Amino acid sequence: MFLTRSEYDRGVNTFSPEGRLFQVEYAIEAIKLGSTAIGIQTNEGVVLAVEKRVTSPLIEPSSIEKIMEVDTHIGCAMSGLIADSRTMIDRARVEAQNHWFTYNERMSVESITQAVSNLALQFGDDDADPGAMSRPFGVALLFAGIDPKGPQLFHMDPSGTFIQYDAKAIGSGSEGAQQALQDTYHKSMTLKEACKESLVILKQVMEEKLNATNVEMATVTPQRMFKMFSKEEIEGIIKDI
Amino acid sequence: MFLTRSEYDRGVNTFSPEGRLFQVEYAIEAIKLGSTAIGIQTNEGVVLAVEKRVTSPLIEPSSIEKIMEVDTHIGCAMSGLIADSRTMIDRARVEAQNHWFTYNERMSVESITQAVSNLALQFGDDDADPGAMSRPFGVALLFAGIDPKGPQLFHMDPSGTFIQYDAKAIGSGSEGAQQALQDTYHKSMTLKEACKESLVILKQVMEEKLNATNVEMATVTPQRMFKMFSKEEIEGIIKDI
Amino acid sequence: MFLTRSEYDRGVNTFSPEGRLFQVEYAIEAIKLGSTAIGIQTNEGVVLAVEKRVTSPLIEPSSIEKIMEVDTHIGCAMSGLIADSRTMIDRARVEAQNHWFTYNERMSVESITQAVSNLALQFGDDDADPGAMSRPFGVALLFAGIDPKGPQLFHMDPSGTFIQYDAKAIGSGSEGAQQALQDTYHKSMTLKEACKESLVILKQVMEEKLNATNVEMATVTPQRMFKMFSKEEIEGIIKDI
Amino acid sequence: MFLTRSEYDRGVNTFSPEGRLFQVEYAIEAIKLGSTAIGIQTNEGVVLAVEKRVTSPLIEPSSIEKIMEVDTHIGCAMSGLIADSRTMIDRARVEAQNHWFTYNERMSVESITQAVSNLALQFGDDDADPGAMSRPFGVALLFAGIDPKGPQLFHMDPSGTFIQYDAKAIGSGSEGAQQALQDTYHKSMTLKEACKESLVILKQVMEEKLNATNVEMATVTPQRMFKMFSKEEIEGIIKDI
Amino acid sequence: MFLTRSEYDRGVNTFSPEGRLFQVEYAIEAIKLGSTAIGIQTNEGVVLAVEKRVTSPLIEPSSIEKIMEVDTHIGCAMSGLIADSRTMIDRARVEAQNHWFTYNERMSVESITQAVSNLALQFGDDDADPGAMSRPFGVALLFAGIDPKGPQLFHMDPSGTFIQYDAKAIGSGSEGAQQALQDTYHKSMTLKEACKESLVILKQVMEEKLNATNVEMATVTPQRMFKMFSKEEIEGIIKDI
Amino acid sequence: MFLTRSEYDRGVNTFSPEGRLFQVEYAIEAIKLGSTAIGIQTNEGVVLAVEKRVTSPLIEPSSIEKIMEVDTHIGCAMSGLIADSRTMIDRARVEAQNHWFTYNERMSVESITQAVSNLALQFGDDDADPGAMSRPFGVALLFAGIDPKGPQLFHMDPSGTFIQYDAKAIGSGSEGAQQALQDTYHKSMTLKEACKESLVILKQVMEEKLNATNVEMATVTPQRMFKMFSKEEIEGIIKDI
Amino acid sequence: MFLTRSEYDRGVNTFSPEGRLFQVEYAIEAIKLGSTAIGIQTNEGVVLAVEKRVTSPLIEPSSIEKIMEVDTHIGCAMSGLIADSRTMIDRARVEAQNHWFTYNERMSVESITQAVSNLALQFGDDDADPGAMSRPFGVALLFAGIDPKGPQLFHMDPSGTFIQYDAKAIGSGSEGAQQALQDTYHKSMTLKEACKESLVILKQVMEEKLNATNVEMATVTPQRMFKMFSKEEIEGIIKDI
Repeated sequence: MFLTRSEYDRGVNTFSPEGRLFQVEYAIEAIKLGSTAIGIQTNEGVVLAVEKRVTSPLIEPSSIEKIMEVDTHIGCAMSGLIADSRTMIDRARVEAQNHWFTYNERMSVESITQAVSNLALQFGDDDADPGAMSRPFGVALLFAGIDPKGPQLFHMDPSGTFIQYDAKAIGSGSEGAQQALQDTYHKSMTLKEACKESLVILKQVMEEKLNATNVEMATVTPQRMFKMFSKEEIEGIIKDI
Repeated sequence: MFLTRSEYDRGVNTFSPEGRLFQVEYAIEAIKLGSTAIGIQTNEGVVLAVEKRVTSPLIEPSSIEKIMEVDTHIGCAMSGLIADSRTMIDRARVEAQNHWFTYNERMSVESITQAVSNLALQFGDDDADPGAMSRPFGVALLFAGIDPKGPQLFHMDPSGTFIQYDAKAIGSGSEGAQQALQDTYHKSMTLKEACKESLVILKQVMEEKLNATNVEMATVTPQRMFKMFSKEEIEGIIKDI
Repeated sequence: MFLTRSEYDRGVNTFSPEGRLFQVEYAIEAIKLGSTAIGIQTNEGVVLAVEKRVTSPLIEPSSIEKIMEVDTHIGCAMSGLIADSRTMIDRARVEAQNHWFTYNERMSVESITQAVSNLALQFGDDDADPGAMSRPFGVALLFAGIDPKGPQLFHMDPSGTFIQYDAKAIGSGSEGAQQALQDTYHKSMTLKEACKESLVILKQVMEEKLNATNVEMATVTPQRMFKMFSKEEIEGIIKDI
Repeated sequence: MFLTRSEYDRGVNTFSPEGRLFQVEYAIEAIKLGSTAIGIQTNEGVVLAVEKRVTSPLIEPSSIEKIMEVDTHIGCAMSGLIADSRTMIDRARVEAQNHWFTYNERMSVESITQAVSNLALQFGDDDADPGAMSRPFGVALLFAGIDPKGPQLFHMDPSGTFIQYDAKAIGSGSEGAQQALQDTYHKSMTLKEACKESLVILKQVMEEKLNATNVEMATVTPQRMFKMFSKEEIEGIIKDI
Repeated sequence: MFLTRSEYDRGVNTFSPEGRLFQVEYAIEAIKLGSTAIGIQTNEGVVLAVEKRVTSPLIEPSSIEKIMEVDTHIGCAMSGLIADSRTMIDRARVEAQNHWFTYNERMSVESITQAVSNLALQFGDDDADPGAMSRPFGVALLFAGIDPKGPQLFHMDPSGTFIQYDAKAIGSGSEGAQQALQDTYHKSMTLKEACKESLVILKQVMEEKLNATNVEMATVTPQRMFKMFSKEEIEGIIKDI
Repeated sequence: MFLTRSEYDRGVNTFSPEGRLFQVEYAIEAIKLGSTAIGIQTNEGVVLAVEKRVTSPLIEPSSIEKIMEVDTHIGCAMSGLIADSRTMIDRARVEAQNHWFTYNERMSVESITQAVSNLALQFGDDDADPGAMSRPFGVALLFAGIDPKGPQLFHMDPSGTFIQYDAKAIGSGSEGAQQALQDTYHKSMTLKEACKESLVILKQVMEEKLNATNVEMATVTPQRMFKMFSKEEIEGIIKDI
Repeated sequence: MFLTRSEYDRGVNTFSPEGRLFQVEYAIEAIKLGSTAIGIQTNEGVVLAVEKRVTSPLIEPSSIEKIMEVDTHIGCAMSGLIADSRTMIDRARVEAQNHWFTYNERMSVESITQAVSNLALQFGDDDADPGAMSRPFGVALLFAGIDPKGPQLFHMDPSGTFIQYDAKAIGSGSEGAQQALQDTYHKSMTLKEACKESLVILKQVMEEKLNATNVEMATVTPQRMFKMFSKEEIEGIIKDI
């Protein structure tokens, strides 16, 4: 019941009587307001596809970046408060470079996700990691990458919890998109099918009509590593649908 | 509903149950009280035009500055709490000088905008960047500049979100002005047309009668770089309308 | 409506839902309780005239100082919480001396005003300038000076906003005084006329009968620089009225 | 009665009039929402068995880790906010390594548990251990290990209290599971019986049907030390049930 | 109206909607509860006379000090929370000694008053002067001294405001005493008349019967500098009344 | 009356209008929820006897320690939040070692108790002893020891108050136990009688049936110094009852 | 009226609208709950006598110390929260030793009292003296000593106010005791009479029957300096009554 709850949720990092951390739950709500992002892992590589909300025809769509390269072998898609994600991507990039410099090998996808998760956990703590915020991060991330274990996709939410998925959708259309992924995903899917499927699903959940300027797409493969798709490449896939 | 909301919006940087950051939303309201500013990007360069509120005939209009030079190749127009903008412009200038000094090249418009956005994000955080405030900045900025990618216009709001626009209006008259920009803007607009158009639109949305003392105008072009218009030059354009 | 407002105005530096900073607005109210001060800029120099509230016949009027010298070429009149102004005047004096020492030239009136404005902006910020207070300064200032641009008059309010004026009144009688200034000011006014006019206006808005002990007057001119008027000089002008 | 209680439980670390620390009690509630974990100590070694909540068929179950190795001779099962447990496991691992390095002997199970308990105690204390949080940890732990005293099982709750058990269940199904343990446990139980029994009990309390992908199992024995069970090994035990 | 006010006056140093600083106003109330003190400036010197509240016949009256020497040429009388005054008197003494040591001249009465005023202003400011308190000082001071400008009397209240007076009364009886001073003071008063007059007035406003043990008296003259009156000297003046 | 009280007891360390410190009083309530502990001082030595709450048959009773050795000549029994006691016992041990190392003599029982009391006093004080907590310790202690003054027993409560007793009971059964001690204690009691008596009293106040696994017992004597009783020794005494 | 008051008294160190500091007033209430203490100054020396509350026959009365030696020439009796007094006595002792070490003379009674008063004043101030607390000290002190001015008695309350008395009573029975002191005290009282009188008065105000174990007594004389009375000496005086 609402009135009771409100007495607990103003403390940034305190438990409610039911053992819940409300600020984290509200941060998760912030992601439900965000644009939809989809990730699919196949044996050939991982694909990330993200809706871009181009709210005005005068916006330059390429200035809205929702997929970013973390390292040559890892990309990241995001939904929620995009400004919040910058600190997290910066941390991921620094950790990846440090690992490479120190151990002369590429950092695993799971290790990078965990490094960012450590940062996410420390909100509201004055003595914590200098990158930590006074509130939970309002952003969910999909890390896609290639490492010795093969292509991998990890999802991380504002609580810092991260889980490996075969296919995962986040953002305002995530409910419908996740159901669609569950219906269509199979282990032997090719990367090409995954690319097409991700746009098919985005098309279903997006309010605006899908076109080459209001989606972003990237793949991470053993051959090409992280690769952003050009407008032409996306148009090619859309034509196929 | 208002009563419920009020329980969340006093914490400077906490989420409401719907995942919103109210202090940022209220800072955005502060901009709706500000004077109107317009930016238009053309292939020849970018124009910035800003309303000045000369509330008394005894005010010296030239002492109200709403367009400022960041570097020789970048200018910035602003709306909202002008006093707040000083820290941001100072940061932009320092970053631009540092970049030039370190890399011997002019900083890109996007990089400067991002540097200021990082500062805007850190409000309410004690250990943050020493330039950060205890509340969000109450100002919106239009960065106009020339870099290797050509003429560019970026908009940044109090949340630190920044997006590239072909043409953008901010401040109290922004709703009408943005609609007018959408109706008249086209990719092949000349800089001269853009200058005239920006004053035509300001004329529509300003409460006072437009004249050479209650607007400011500047352009950034590959030839002349950042250039403030004199009172005479503005009068010349007004006559054309 | 009052009840709603009260929920926002206790946070020293937070936005209300309408985008307002109440503590700054309340500080501006403090000035409306202060004594009236008037500044008039002419081609020959600038005059400052201030009401002194001598609430008891046993007060030594000369101990109430409301006009102070910042540098040989700049003076400052004030209204509001006089005790607050001391930090600001000290900052202005230090900045002026530093500038003179470093560049071997007198600091411009605008630069000094901006230095004080930077201090005023930083209230409520723990890591800020050591001179900053935990609340806005409750004082408005009129800076009058001579620099290469000629005689100049700047007004600064508790928000740190500063604007150049031809003539400006602050304090409890400012509304009537500003209207009177608007009616009588003209660009070709002589300094002598301005001195007389300022006392005429003070006489209208002061509750007590104007005399040589309950007003202070100073001028800044290229010839004499900053100059406080003696009791006899003021009496001379009063006789003329 | 609830209204009265709410006045005390918002302070992170203050007593209620009855001498209770509510934030600790609420953290204990968080564990009642967690997945069930069971530990059984026998003369041959200790077994840990944990339910995994695989909420989507697209989740990669192996990425949900609820049993972790602390040192070669100690493992740890957990229930509650898994993200919180990371700091605790890290502390346990560092303490174990330090002890081994300094004294050239394996740290006892009780000493490791106490080291983690010290960390748990210090929440809400600014000057405390840098690993401490601003709220109690929302996780319960079962430490299983072998040391000179033989196989041992310790339980620690969010208050930092730790007690040695012959057999202990935590998490949402702990009430039923603990009763079942009490009915079936006997001192002469073999490790094999304990493994089987732990899955029999998990099967009873889990909402989902038990299978080899939604449970994790590990043993700590003098011969093999800490050993995670493979999917095949778990399937073997399930068939036996 | 009271209820509204109470919402603003708890913040130590914040403005009310009418631009008032309530904690300072309340500190001024504290002085209205204090014992009465009177200061009179004549051409021959300044006299300070203070009521002492000897609430029990077992109190040693000389241990209640309400007039203190700041330097050989300056004394200070006080009313309000006497314990608070100690920091201020200490500051005044240190400043006076520093001035004498640095410039080889006695510090002026106004400069000493201003030094103490700077301290009074900084309450509630963490980074302020280490002598500053977390609330306004609850004490009013009368500084009496001799400097090159002749005998002088300054009054300072908890807001840090200070004004020069010919004659001034503070404390619980100040209203009546100030009126009496206004009626009897004249510029040609001798110091002897002033001493007598100050006791006459104290006699009128004190609840207890005036005698040589419940008042303190001191003069600052060019000849004798600061001089406390002995019990016998006070008795001599009382007989004259 | 409860509602009024609640307005004062949330501040960790502030007085109520009646001059009470509620957080300390509530911490004392926490001890009334704890298990019962008894200490008896005789001429031959001191005995400590403590109830252990073995809430499950699967608990290993020896892992619940409520009597701890501070130094060879001092032991300590406790009741309340056992986790809180660890910091206090650690402090006591360090102080005892330091004293022995510095002065080459055993620290007196009173000095050790005072050292722990100093720590208990400093709660809620940021700049205090690094071992201090943000709330009062929720534990009461009985220090038993031998020093040049002979066998001694000290009691310390959460307020840091400590008093020497001939015999003292703490915890949930303390009321009845203290009355029983008062009825049976006499100065010429032998240590053997005291051991028996302490178990007789525990038997009366414990809810569970007393046996050798749910009590702990220790003595401090000049001959054997601190000595924990084995299960067999306790069983021997129980048989005598 | 209570409801209004409660809005001001929670701030540790803020003024109420009537200019009162409630936390200090509440601390003074704490002393009214304390045991009674009496001090009497005679020409031969000063006597201190204090009630001890021996609430249980099993308490060792000598462990309750309410009179302590500050230096060989100064003693201190106390009432209120005894645990609070420790910091103050420690400060007094250190100051006394420092003075003796630096100046090779005994510190005066007034100077020691003032040193402790400075500590008492600084509560609630983060940057203050490291010995200061976050609330006022809840203890009143009677300093008795011999210095070049002869035997002296000072009283200090939680506000830090200190006054010299011929005779003073503090604690729960102070009202009646002070009246009795007023009736019987005379300047020519011998020390022996004062010792007897102090016990006579304690007898009247104590709830328990006065005997040699529930009072403490000490004198400070030029011959013997600070001297605690033995049980036998107190019994001797009691017989005389």
